[in-house]
Amino acid sequence: MKYCSTCGHPVEQRIPEGDNRHRYVCISCEEIHYQNPRIVAGTVPVWEGKILLCRRAIEPRYGYWTLPAGFMENAETTVEAAMRETMEEALAEVVVDGLYSIIDVPHINQVHMFYRASLKDGRFGAGEESLESRLFDLADIPWGEISFPTVRKTLELFVEDVKNDSFGVHIDDIRRPMSATSKTG
Amino acid sequence: MKYCSTCGHPVEQRIPEGDNRHRYVCISCEEIHYQNPRIVAGTVPVWEGKILLCRRAIEPRYGYWTLPAGFMENAETTVEAAMRETMEEALAEVVVDGLYSIIDVPHINQVHMFYRASLKDGRFGAGEESLESRLFDLADIPWGEISFPTVRKTLELFVEDVKNDSFGVHIDDIRRPMSATSKTG
Ligand SMILES: [Zn+2]
Ligand SMILES: [Zn+2]
Repeated sequence: MKYCSTCGHPVEQRIPEGDNRHRYVCISCEEIHYQNPRIVAGTVPVWEGKILLCRRAIEPRYGYWTLPAGFMENAETTVEAAMRETMEEALAEVVVDGLYSIIDVPHINQVHMFYRASLKDGRFGAGEESLESRLFDLADIPWGEISFPTVRKTLELFVEDVKNDSFGVHIDDIRRPMSATSKTG
Repeated sequence: MKYCSTCGHPVEQRIPEGDNRHRYVCISCEEIHYQNPRIVAGTVPVWEGKILLCRRAIEPRYGYWTLPAGFMENAETTVEAAMRETMEEALAEVVVDGLYSIIDVPHINQVHMFYRASLKDGRFGAGEESLESRLFDLADIPWGEISFPTVRKTLELFVEDVKNDSFGVHIDDIRRPMSATSKTG
């Protein structure tokens, strides 16, 4: 951020009065431009005991498998965001069964939230950001080609919970850089 | 938003190629300036069966009682944000017991998250944004002077769960305008 989005004059970094953090503050109109984490919302879509994954048609992680998920938009709820992303990326209508995982990723200022979901009628496809979508048996999840640590973590938790037939809400965080963990798979 | 925060030229609202929503796009450098919901994180701080509430020293809702909560900052987790806000507003160190409520408030582009917590040593006070802090018996919660609908909802759920001695994670949303509900007392 270099310029004030309200008046177009330059901003500087300083600690505003009564605050304890550096903020971008406009040198002309004095507006404080706060920056906050973003939510990524998605689903774990299930159909007849299989999980629907999408193969990414965009960077980062082009060609890798992911759960359908993306940035939450203004004016929607987290559930709506998760359902919308599932429709956009996997062309699948889902019924949401419950919140499943919340994974903080503080070094990239994101919070990832996944909902458990069931395909409504078994139909799915490849949205514009996907090369393909496919239903995987839990034993056949392509662990070596998973897109992101939060997706991997959520899938690991899910496989474990299916074994135990018990689905709680999982709170976790991933603090190491994505580039490091994404190579361990 | 009127000006591009990257180059200082004006922005216009249009639907970028491959998108389906209006965005602020710079007419000069073409950067797309996305806007996303913000997370408000807080705690339900308990000590010897009582709940710690803070009376707000700032607008909006000056003088009303609230759970300690505030906007999550970059580079922290939701738990860290909730603990930080509890320290800032109630001068209380807490141990977090678990996620309690996630309440979407789509008309103001916010997601509120509250964690169940216990005071570490029973000490608390009034931070700069609080007139005072006080421990309330559940029977004495000042329902007529609660600050925000998400705080009211979380307190209602908590009182109910204490009765049943069962604390799950509650997902909910509040869609009506705050100004309407805040008058119902
Ligand atoms: Zn300005
Ligand atoms: Zn620009």
